[in-house]
Amino acid sequence: MNEHRLLIQTNDTQGLVYNISKILFEQNLNIESNSEYVDNETNEFFMRSVITGEFAQKDLLRKLKDILPVNAIIQLTKKAKKDIIILATKEMYCLGDLLIKHEAGDLDANITAVISNRDSLKNLVEKFNIPFEYVTHEELSREEHEDLLIKAIKKYDYELIVLAKYMRILTPNFVKTFPKQVLNIHHSFLPAFIGANPYKQAHSRGVKIIGATSHWVTNVLDEGPIIAQDITRVDHTYSWEDMRDAGRNVEKVVLSNALDLVLKDKVFVYGNKTVIL
Amino acid sequence: MNEHRLLIQTNDTQGLVYNISKILFEQNLNIESNSEYVDNETNEFFMRSVITGEFAQKDLLRKLKDILPVNAIIQLTKKAKKDIIILATKEMYCLGDLLIKHEAGDLDANITAVISNRDSLKNLVEKFNIPFEYVTHEELSREEHEDLLIKAIKKYDYELIVLAKYMRILTPNFVKTFPKQVLNIHHSFLPAFIGANPYKQAHSRGVKIIGATSHWVTNVLDEGPIIAQDITRVDHTYSWEDMRDAGRNVEKVVLSNALDLVLKDKVFVYGNKTVIL
Amino acid sequence: MNEHRLLIQTNDTQGLVYNISKILFEQNLNIESNSEYVDNETNEFFMRSVITGEFAQKDLLRKLKDILPVNAIIQLTKKAKKDIIILATKEMYCLGDLLIKHEAGDLDANITAVISNRDSLKNLVEKFNIPFEYVTHEELSREEHEDLLIKAIKKYDYELIVLAKYMRILTPNFVKTFPKQVLNIHHSFLPAFIGANPYKQAHSRGVKIIGATSHWVTNVLDEGPIIAQDITRVDHTYSWEDMRDAGRNVEKVVLSNALDLVLKDKVFVYGNKTVIL
Amino acid sequence: MNEHRLLIQTNDTQGLVYNISKILFEQNLNIESNSEYVDNETNEFFMRSVITGEFAQKDLLRKLKDILPVNAIIQLTKKAKKDIIILATKEMYCLGDLLIKHEAGDLDANITAVISNRDSLKNLVEKFNIPFEYVTHEELSREEHEDLLIKAIKKYDYELIVLAKYMRILTPNFVKTFPKQVLNIHHSFLPAFIGANPYKQAHSRGVKIIGATSHWVTNVLDEGPIIAQDITRVDHTYSWEDMRDAGRNVEKVVLSNALDLVLKDKVFVYGNKTVIL
Repeated sequence: MNEHRLLIQTNDTQGLVYNISKILFEQNLNIESNSEYVDNETNEFFMRSVITGEFAQKDLLRKLKDILPVNAIIQLTKKAKKDIIILATKEMYCLGDLLIKHEAGDLDANITAVISNRDSLKNLVEKFNIPFEYVTHEELSREEHEDLLIKAIKKYDYELIVLAKYMRILTPNFVKTFPKQVLNIHHSFLPAFIGANPYKQAHSRGVKIIGATSHWVTNVLDEGPIIAQDITRVDHTYSWEDMRDAGRNVEKVVLSNALDLVLKDKVFVYGNKTVIL
Repeated sequence: MNEHRLLIQTNDTQGLVYNISKILFEQNLNIESNSEYVDNETNEFFMRSVITGEFAQKDLLRKLKDILPVNAIIQLTKKAKKDIIILATKEMYCLGDLLIKHEAGDLDANITAVISNRDSLKNLVEKFNIPFEYVTHEELSREEHEDLLIKAIKKYDYELIVLAKYMRILTPNFVKTFPKQVLNIHHSFLPAFIGANPYKQAHSRGVKIIGATSHWVTNVLDEGPIIAQDITRVDHTYSWEDMRDAGRNVEKVVLSNALDLVLKDKVFVYGNKTVIL
Repeated sequence: MNEHRLLIQTNDTQGLVYNISKILFEQNLNIESNSEYVDNETNEFFMRSVITGEFAQKDLLRKLKDILPVNAIIQLTKKAKKDIIILATKEMYCLGDLLIKHEAGDLDANITAVISNRDSLKNLVEKFNIPFEYVTHEELSREEHEDLLIKAIKKYDYELIVLAKYMRILTPNFVKTFPKQVLNIHHSFLPAFIGANPYKQAHSRGVKIIGATSHWVTNVLDEGPIIAQDITRVDHTYSWEDMRDAGRNVEKVVLSNALDLVLKDKVFVYGNKTVIL
Repeated sequence: MNEHRLLIQTNDTQGLVYNISKILFEQNLNIESNSEYVDNETNEFFMRSVITGEFAQKDLLRKLKDILPVNAIIQLTKKAKKDIIILATKEMYCLGDLLIKHEAGDLDANITAVISNRDSLKNLVEKFNIPFEYVTHEELSREEHEDLLIKAIKKYDYELIVLAKYMRILTPNFVKTFPKQVLNIHHSFLPAFIGANPYKQAHSRGVKIIGATSHWVTNVLDEGPIIAQDITRVDHTYSWEDMRDAGRNVEKVVLSNALDLVLKDKVFVYGNKTVIL
């Protein structure tokens, strides 16, 4: 089935839905599903349509451009598995969760490589016949290490880079190199407990709930647009290690859910927020 | 602001969104928000638009009917507080929650009356200057009692009847008299624990989570279309009374949330399910 | 039934449970329930026992003191409704929730007065025949206002002061005047969104979950020991006002749950945390 | 560290805690943590203590037996990884989750074998160097198949059998062969949707929440004592396959959490319920 996802983001104007739906109608497309949202504060319009049928992509895009404002964002993606590269450091639970989903055929993605600044995950990754690249950061400046990291990434196909407990801070240069392509899981309910050791922070604060947040990576640490969050309950009997262990289940599920939304082209970025249709 | 809600439910056909949006565009309406959903199994189309602007209601409805299938359901409602009647028996927590919201101006509804088969809630209701009707069921057959109940209801304005812990089973005659107008809160996570004493059932089964369900009332007990559900955690230390007490917070929030969705004209009924846009 | 709650907090030592249980046994008490917790990091021991039977309170306390370290905290409380004073400003939902519970007999407390820095809640409170004190802050310094507030509080019996959306910051003098007696509800999932307008902050940050936190009031704003937290899900369609409205249900339930724990003498304070047995 | 877990379940009597703690004290044991619970309806007493120190096991058990009723259940377990056998059919997500935890060293267990009635999981299991036994049910009666299954199980060490999406109903003979040793994950929020295809049932009923339940296996299908439950939210846009996919994350987390409780000797079975200390 020739299924495409059409995403449009633009200023709202009267007749916008009519004008867009007119073009889709005239192209003789089937609309399998259609979601729209207008942010009433900023008057920004978001639309995601799943369309099937035979059509000329260029023709459709040209016609849409003709009726939409110049700065409208139009994205037309064929439904297909996306290539992703996973970056990890040493913890297995997020990476392992994605590897199992990949092996089971439950991930709408091809994991083309796993890259780590340590070598301890090599054995796990290679069980699944996925290339593993070890790019140590030892005795290297942050810039030198990232240069090697970027080179390693570019050896493989990717549409998306997933940080599955990659425990190094990325430089603006890295972020700029892969714009809107880097997805992270942070082990707290952001914006609570930004930075290092969130479980120790949470334990010290005596919270009754801990969480995890998956977000796009931007230049500001732990401040990128949030895609998914979830929580679990804890109490005074939890040491910080218990919180960490309980949190791992949340982290892996949140990362997996956020990745799923991204792979289905459901996530719009707007300012520092996401709109998910 | 002249705000209306337009709800359309019909078989999906190619060009449907185009044809509807064409009419809305030609009426010079502003679409404040627009949600659509197509059930791919049954090909049923649902749309909810919030529209503002000056327009002739009859004209709009006629034009929509012209392009929609004969059996399409079209509903055009002006944004306004709806009149509701609350039925309760003796427990205060759901009724009290609605009375406080009403008093605070946080409920998109006018409570025109509270009717009970007991008189113990009279004192609470009259504090808020809301008419209270006591319709005892004692020494009456179910049919006799319901006749009196229906008469009491019809003394007041209503678009909706809310069962806020009304602990009597309603007959098919009652359901038929107020079609798609009776909203109930059931004190379990349906379909678990249908019928009487769900907290005792839950306690006896040793569940670790209890819940509440708000649903439309139909002729089959506890089987009507579900609008909202929520849960809370319990453990072995909870007696059934503790479960009941913990559940009350869930019940009142679920009923309040479901009522809010109904008052905002967000709930479509489709078969034995709801679509909420 | 002569039911008491015995709470002990002290350094753990070998034989502690044995020595305490020996005394309870020799007093011929029935232990209805017993919970213990040792913080393994700090070696602090917490115990809460519900005991029934005829016994001499002074004798029991003296014997416990004899075997416990000098700085042990021993609390013996007869099960009874506690007197509480509620402070509020203008929002009804938390106050109303407590008033309804009080009216229904579902609160283990007597609300002896409601005090507000505005007069708009007077009408609601007096429906329930509870004294309402209006202590305006207008044209007064913070200190002058608090002096009047403290005087108003002291006119009534109280064991606990509940801030049910009291929107003024309290001074160290106030906190010192009512040590470990002031319970607050904060409208965010602390420590996220400390300070003013947490729902606006949450909306601006684009979070997918909002929450509420009930905590003891200390001199550091929003930093006191957390008693209870809960959350609800939101998405991009929520304006900050929608978040506020959704959050209100969470706030009132969290405050009610925290108050319930305090009224049942289940909450120990230890450093900046709580232990709940 | 010589850490043991002592579990006692018996009728409550006055002085019970005193008598037990006296013995523990006289054995010069350190009590690392201690939890007690009395079911006030049935007067049943439950205690779990984590103890360290040098002591004679037999001596301790004898002394406890001397002071406890004849039918008291006393269990003394050295803290150690337990041997477990996993039964699965064809779905990877629960099995894979346990394999990754095992590989990461995050599971307090040794997986000694995985046994399946299909051979499709062989490849995954053998990546982790764990024995895989294929015991087909084809062309066999239920009894014949179970005989082979039991033989396969008995080839390996086990203290616990985990059904990680094992999709065959077990006979009373199997249950009797491994009493209180078989842990299952059911893909619904029991007791809702007992039996086959719970996600199809949930979809058909139009629920707004789906869940998963981990329980001990007894002779009555899906009726054994519940250890852990959790839920996730769904809405009208979910097909039953979407519900299944969303549910898988819940199932694997619930099974993992329940297994963790069992491996830590925290789960008492009492009638058809569990007490978790």
